Parts: sequence; structure tokens; C-alpha cells
Amino acid sequence: MKKMRRSSRLVDMTQYLLSHPYTLIPLTYFADQYGAAKSSISEDLVIVKELFENRGIGMLKTVAGAAGGVQYIPIMKKEDALSVIKDICETLSASERLLPGGYLYMADFLGNPRVLSQVGKIFASVFAEKEIDVIMTVETKGIPLAYATAHYLNVPVVIVRRDTKITEGSVVSINYVSGSSKRIQTMSLARRVMPENARVLIIDDFMKAGGTAQGMIDLLGEFHAEVVGVGIFVETAEIEEKLVHDYVSLARITDVDSREKKVYVEPGNWFEK
Amino acid sequence: MKKMRRSSRLVDMTQYLLSHPYTLIPLTYFADQYGAAKSSISEDLVIVKELFENRGIGMLKTVAGAAGGVQYIPIMKKEDALSVIKDICETLSASERLLPGGYLYMADFLGNPRVLSQVGKIFASVFAEKEIDVIMTVETKGIPLAYATAHYLNVPVVIVRRDTKITEGSVVSINYVSGSSKRIQTMSLARRVMPENARVLIIDDFMKAGGTAQGMIDLLGEFHAEVVGVGIFVETAEIEEKLVHDYVSLARITDVDSREKKVYVEPGNWFEK
Repeated sequence: MKKMRRSSRLVDMTQYLLSHPYTLIPLTYFADQYGAAKSSISEDLVIVKELFENRGIGMLKTVAGAAGGVQYIPIMKKEDALSVIKDICETLSASERLLPGGYLYMADFLGNPRVLSQVGKIFASVFAEKEIDVIMTVETKGIPLAYATAHYLNVPVVIVRRDTKITEGSVVSINYVSGSSKRIQTMSLARRVMPENARVLIIDDFMKAGGTAQGMIDLLGEFHAEVVGVGIFVETAEIEEKLVHDYVSLARITDVDSREKKVYVEPGNWFEK
Repeated sequence: MKKMRRSSRLVDMTQYLLSHPYTLIPLTYFADQYGAAKSSISEDLVIVKELFENRGIGMLKTVAGAAGGVQYIPIMKKEDALSVIKDICETLSASERLLPGGYLYMADFLGNPRVLSQVGKIFASVFAEKEIDVIMTVETKGIPLAYATAHYLNVPVVIVRRDTKITEGSVVSINYVSGSSKRIQTMSLARRVMPENARVLIIDDFMKAGGTAQGMIDLLGEFHAEVVGVGIFVETAEIEEKLVHDYVSLARITDVDSREKKVYVEPGNWFEK
């Protein structure tokens, strides 16, 4: 490749770092790509690092030594996250979103790639220190949130299925009791999708009593995996005594007035910490 | 905001453009953000544009005039796409991926955010000119591909469900006949997720006879929506006479030898065009 000027290098490094979060990139990689000295690359990285930090895009972590390099850690500042979540709470509070059973219509939200990307980045910031190997979710509505988070943490996603018609080889199934409806349900995970001794982050879109989350935790026990975090997009305060205690929620439905068709949504427990 | 130097501006513009594909950004937006003259912003954009094109990241489209601005169109070059797909074909050809019924184990692929992102960008490149309003897929395994594509096209995703236990208000359901198993199945879509007269791109992970794709096309008829493209990640050549004729596949299983446990996968029909 022909020698690149600093201005072009900065553009290319930015796009490369953004598309390779949580990946240690040796400085020699950039030096070779651009035909530049490692000292010039270091100077470039100072500029990128400053801008990323000032604009709340994330951190650039530099690891010194022969096996060293630079790593982009996507982090959204808590104040920026709160402002994103406040906007979401306001939109979710619209009365026409109220559905029978105290559910909220969120398909438009969970269908919007830009909203998802922001929420995924918030989850990635919440669990940045947890050294996650795998994100797990249950079909269907948690899937986009799980992938949006996985993109920023650079880890794979495994999807728990609610039926057993799975074309993925042998599966492990468990029965669990839905905390709100008290019905027995089944969830299954293909045996070969989950690595041994994985550190797992559970992501889901909605939590009422926590029965589904508890089911996923039980299922992970069968795989000798460790749950290192549970992230819930919206929880409801209606059922106070959850089956799961250690979880992070980004938003919380505090009250539903079915007669007046009013929903009250506020930022979740993460913002109280 | 305090005045920014060119080097910092380039880093910030790059991250902003990459996170806002298919969005017309007025030059005054950047000028105000950075306290810079519009002429300096134009010079910056020339640098970004050149780099994006040289590195195969995409195009920057400039629209002149008062309502003008700059728009990032993610496009992967066909030769780069072919090289990505060839790698995927090779990995998919591993014998241990063969599952009963001629299915291929792809969960690890479809769980990997980097692979998904590349495949999503290829789909976005294939359908770049189609002025898509909405991407539609059917649960479960098509969902991550649909979102990866939606991210690059900046459009929402709607998910067709295989059951009717949907907490999204009233739904439209249709019965369809699976082309390979000949069984009658049901698919449903919540009424309010699909805008009127939308131009829809259908994305799915796998196609045998095309029954599911045809079902989605029929369902869209109920919503007065127009199908402007069908993108399939992997099709099988086993059933030659598909129910759907106008589709793009990225990879194709040409032969499965169950006795020898061999699978032959090659690039799909898009690379023959």
C-alpha cells in the first residue's frame, strides 16, 4: 500500500477501531497498513483517543510492550445514557402503547436500528468490566437487543428457543414456571452453541416477575456456565418480589392506569446506583 | 463548542457518518459542531470520501443546494463481498455441520456479530438502489441478518411470528404450505408494525423450496406493501423448482453427501449476475 497522509490515516483508523471493539490491535498493524512509523501512529492515536473521550464515544486502551497495542472500549457516559433513556421513557408513556395484560407495544422501538444501537451501547457500558464471553437471550423480542449489545462487546449471541423444533443438533431443554402467569413452559438450547465454563450475560426486553430470566439462569446451570450479569430493557414495578434479584434495568413501568389508559415509565434501577 | 482542528474534525466526522448511514447531513451541521467554515468542512469531506472509496467502505454522496448535504451509503465492493462469501462457504463445508434433513449447523455463524455485520453490509450493497422502507423477516434465525442489514440501510425491521401469542395488538395471520415438507403452517404479523404502501425487503437465513418466502410475500399482500427484494443467506440447490423466482442468494449448498458426510457450498446467484 502506498504511504498515507495523517488526515487519511485518521479517517481509516477511526473506522477500523469502531468496527473492531474489544480487539487488541498491534501498532505495527497500522504502521504496515499505512507505511508509517510507529511513532507517527502513536501520535495519531492520541488525537483519536482525545476525540473519542471528549465526544463520549468510548475509551482507547493502550497496552505497552511487544504483545501490546490499542483497544477500543465502547462506553457511553452515564449522563448521555440517562438522556437517551429519558427520551425512550417519554415515548413509551404514550397511552396508545398500552396493550391488554399490562404489556407495552414496543415493536417499533425494537425494530429501529438506531434506538437499538444506543440501547446496546448502554448495556455494553453497564457490563464493560465483566469479561463476558457470550450473550444469551430468549426468542423473540430480546434478540435484537442481544445483538446490538454483542456488537459493542464483540462476543457471540446464543438464542434460547421456546420450542424444540430446532435444526441445530441435540438440545438441552428445561421446564420453568412463568412468574406472572404461573404456567409451565419449556425452553431449549442447542448443546453445541454454548462453550464450556462461559461467562454469560443475559439480555432480555421485558421482565415482569422474572420467571423467564430465572429459567435462563437454570438452563445455564446445565451448561456449567456462569451468569455474570442480567440486563433488562424494561421491567415492571407491578410485581415487586421478582424471582431474580441481581439484575440491571434501563427503564421501569411504575404504574399502569388501564381505565385512564395511562402508563408511567421512568429510568430503571441502573440509574439509581 | 470550542473550535476543532482538522485532525479532530476528521475523526469525529468519520464516526458520525458511519453511525448515520443513508442520512442526509447538512454541511452546516458539521460547521456549527466544529466552529469551522463550510469551505473547510467541504475540504474535510473530500478526504473522507477518497478514503471511504479507496478502502471499500462506501460512497459519500453530496447533494448541492440549500437543502443539500452529505450522505454515507455503505457499499461493499463485489470483489470484497465475494472474498467474504468464499471464506464463509469454506467454513460451512465442514462435515460436522451437516444435520438431519439436509440442514446445516449455522448458529455459530449467525451468532457472530462480525460475520453478521459483513453479511448485512453485503445485503445492503445488493439492495442499495431499491429505496427500501422496511426489512421483513420471520423468526427466529433470520432476525440477526435482518437487523445487520437494517443497520446499514437505516430502516426498521418487522418480524413475522410463527405463533399468534403476540402481545402487539391485533394481528393478521395467514396459512401457508411449506414447500419442502408440504405441511400447513401459520405466520402472523401485528397490524400496526407495517406502514401502508411500504417498499419491503425480505431477508431470511435459509431457503429450500421457498415456501416461507412465498408465505411472507402473500402476507405482505394483506398489508398492501410492495416486495422490492428477497435476500437469502444460504439456499439449497436440492429443490431446483423454487416457489419464489426473483431472489438473491449469497451462498448455495450444491450437494450433500449424507453417507460420506460431505457438504458442498459455493457462492450464491448474486455472484453469477
